[in-house]
Amino acid sequence: MRMRHKPWANDFLAENADIAISDPAQYKGRWNTVFGNDNPIHIEVGTGKGQFISGMAKQNPDINYIGIELFKSVIVTAVQKVKDSGAHNVRLLNIDAETLNDVFERGEIKRVYLNFSDPWPKNRHEKRRLTFKTFLKKYEEVMGETGEIHFKTDNRGLFEYSLKSFSEYGLLLTEVSLDLHNSDPKGNIMTEYEEKFSALGQPIYRAEVEWRTKDRL
Amino acid sequence: MRMRHKPWANDFLAENADIAISDPAQYKGRWNTVFGNDNPIHIEVGTGKGQFISGMAKQNPDINYIGIELFKSVIVTAVQKVKDSGAHNVRLLNIDAETLNDVFERGEIKRVYLNFSDPWPKNRHEKRRLTFKTFLKKYEEVMGETGEIHFKTDNRGLFEYSLKSFSEYGLLLTEVSLDLHNSDPKGNIMTEYEEKFSALGQPIYRAEVEWRTKDRL
Repeated sequence: MRMRHKPWANDFLAENADIAISDPAQYKGRWNTVFGNDNPIHIEVGTGKGQFISGMAKQNPDINYIGIELFKSVIVTAVQKVKDSGAHNVRLLNIDAETLNDVFERGEIKRVYLNFSDPWPKNRHEKRRLTFKTFLKKYEEVMGETGEIHFKTDNRGLFEYSLKSFSEYGLLLTEVSLDLHNSDPKGNIMTEYEEKFSALGQPIYRAEVEWRTKDRL
Repeated sequence: MRMRHKPWANDFLAENADIAISDPAQYKGRWNTVFGNDNPIHIEVGTGKGQFISGMAKQNPDINYIGIELFKSVIVTAVQKVKDSGAHNVRLLNIDAETLNDVFERGEIKRVYLNFSDPWPKNRHEKRRLTFKTFLKKYEEVMGETGEIHFKTDNRGLFEYSLKSFSEYGLLLTEVSLDLHNSDPKGNIMTEYEEKFSALGQPIYRAEVEWRTKDRL
């Protein structure tokens, strides 16, 4: 996505500290106190400009959402969007996905969303893909063994890779669509990318995977 | 596929009993004697008019191929095609896939091909799909625990279903393409269907799965 330097970003995030949580590691194991309830917490890794997470929060008021976005110049747009939506069940963290385990306790998260993640098409960049095994391990650590990942992308190579990576990791594929917008995408909230690419007629790929409980193995 | 009654089919199969093996259960556990060598045996379940298996046999002379086709009026075309090709490493069986385990000994088969299998789109026909768990069990029985399935189809619903069925069964997804003809389909032999549907610009889906060896579980 197009990124510009935004010199005002730090100030903007500080002014909106109720949405953009600074120093999030301090809440590890007690995110429920931040939301003021014990609703399940779902995270989106790579939340971009925030259209998905704002829409989900509005659609599902009994779920708490935390969006994670590395780029400050991008997350400011998400903060504005959440602010405009008036939703109280969203928080945004300007952190690297590498640090997930510093911020969440084991079992604190119930679901991970990955939407239109950077495909990193070169083989030598495999480790950077958010469906690479080291990331799956991080998700497992914050979700415990009953978690699930909901993943969508327009990138065929990334989707093919991810299906194999999920399988290799031993995850159970519970849902898959190879053309989401020509399926029955009930409740689907589109990201900014998704609107753009699906309008071009490009298929959107989507999968849900979960950790196998011991009796399924 | 279009099927006509062919009253001459029985005579034709009898005349070509070197290719179309009658009473195949008699060779259970000793198919190597039929081929006269110990090369690995790959089977195609639903071999149709035989273009795939003839092409594979020509491309891979060190593999023995056995095609299974339920419909007599269809298998006659495959027999003629194999005959015309001059290949000595193909046999064809006019049997129901349900009876696989009567015909092959455990471990006798190294790979199963499923090409453009009937999608049976209605939920109540799920059990008839060749990737339903009872069929996966049959393939496991004839391959032992080191087998693999190579599957391709143009039917999105069947492919989505099959990916889930493979995962649920615990199979490891080692290869997947969501647009075979725009990937790098090295050595791909097209079926009659595949030629027709890919020419219409329809994506061809392909997967390879294998049984997980114990140390991978």
